[in-house]
Amino acid sequence: MTTTLYGYWRSLAAFRVRAALNYKEVSFTEKIIDLSQGDQFSASYHELNPQHVIPLLEHQGKKITQSLAILEYIDQVWPTKPLLPKDPYEQAYLRSISQITIADTHPLVVPRVRNFLGKTYHQDEAGQTAWAQHWLNLGSLAIEERLLGEKLYGQFCLGDTLSLADLALASHVVGARIFKADLSHCPTLIRIVDRVLEIPSIGMSHPLKQPGAPKM
Amino acid sequence: MTTTLYGYWRSLAAFRVRAALNYKEVSFTEKIIDLSQGDQFSASYHELNPQHVIPLLEHQGKKITQSLAILEYIDQVWPTKPLLPKDPYEQAYLRSISQITIADTHPLVVPRVRNFLGKTYHQDEAGQTAWAQHWLNLGSLAIEERLLGEKLYGQFCLGDTLSLADLALASHVVGARIFKADLSHCPTLIRIVDRVLEIPSIGMSHPLKQPGAPKM
Repeated sequence: MTTTLYGYWRSLAAFRVRAALNYKEVSFTEKIIDLSQGDQFSASYHELNPQHVIPLLEHQGKKITQSLAILEYIDQVWPTKPLLPKDPYEQAYLRSISQITIADTHPLVVPRVRNFLGKTYHQDEAGQTAWAQHWLNLGSLAIEERLLGEKLYGQFCLGDTLSLADLALASHVVGARIFKADLSHCPTLIRIVDRVLEIPSIGMSHPLKQPGAPKM
Repeated sequence: MTTTLYGYWRSLAAFRVRAALNYKEVSFTEKIIDLSQGDQFSASYHELNPQHVIPLLEHQGKKITQSLAILEYIDQVWPTKPLLPKDPYEQAYLRSISQITIADTHPLVVPRVRNFLGKTYHQDEAGQTAWAQHWLNLGSLAIEERLLGEKLYGQFCLGDTLSLADLALASHVVGARIFKADLSHCPTLIRIVDRVLEIPSIGMSHPLKQPGAPKM
């Protein structure tokens, strides 16, 4: 049975999942759903995911959506190099940091929301970028304060072992850089993410290194 | 050691957590963070959660934020009446349904976003409600199609056993009803949530039954 990721170069959520698969050396195929062409609304993709969003993971005939659910599934099905520790509090700490970006920040800056701002409130690209920067800045500061508050970090969010929170933060910072958001008050966040992106399997998963991405 | 939930009657995310604690018969105290008075920005709450959001769970001196992370923690620390099955795919299915609302819908309709629409795009209450209805309607339809597509539901999302997805959907529907969003195309979602709200420990956790809620 094959493993298929439905993704797109620009998707930060697909990046998180691609990075986890590559980090765990899972053999998989990535099928491109070109969001810029509206492929997510095609009849064939609607059949796979009526929510019209990526990423979607197909594994052994089963379909899984939502990046955080996919990350937890990957960690259970391919347990080598675990992305979560055993301790419930440490798990909660890592999930909650992940969710500051996955559940509170990223959903506000995705294309469907920016398109809505354009259509309904007549926000041009500059206005849409200002919106994205506002929420990304708030999210970055919240993550930085959370990391400093708990003081559990080492090279990564929890000591020196990579976890799903590090993948979530990598996608957050990559997004913040694409939108030229303000990361100047977040040295801890940046230090962790730059270390994460140095891991070859994760660095090669970066949005700008995928087919279709603009040359930078 | 005591267990403390920092919540507020209107918070849908606090409702999910309150419902889980009551369902599992955990002894806890709820401290009110009055969002309408800006209590979330007070110095004492900033100390607890620099992200200035609720809910927050304090347990054995540890602080946990983000409702989904809290729900997973509660399920691990108080394992009686589990909210997740053992099977990785079933877990992924339940987490992904939860995240359609927790990570893709609810973050768009919270007060801080509606306030921003008011200040920046001059949206009055009707405009803010239209925004909330738009995203709640999309979320409701996505959940309904997901439930029908997988056909794993019984009384609840996965057969007849209550899970964290049922708590997430209950908070979604309670929110959709508060905003008078369109639920007319979602009979499966409604049937499940109405059954969930019949469980006394969950019904008593409903936002409108908390101190400070308006009389309906």
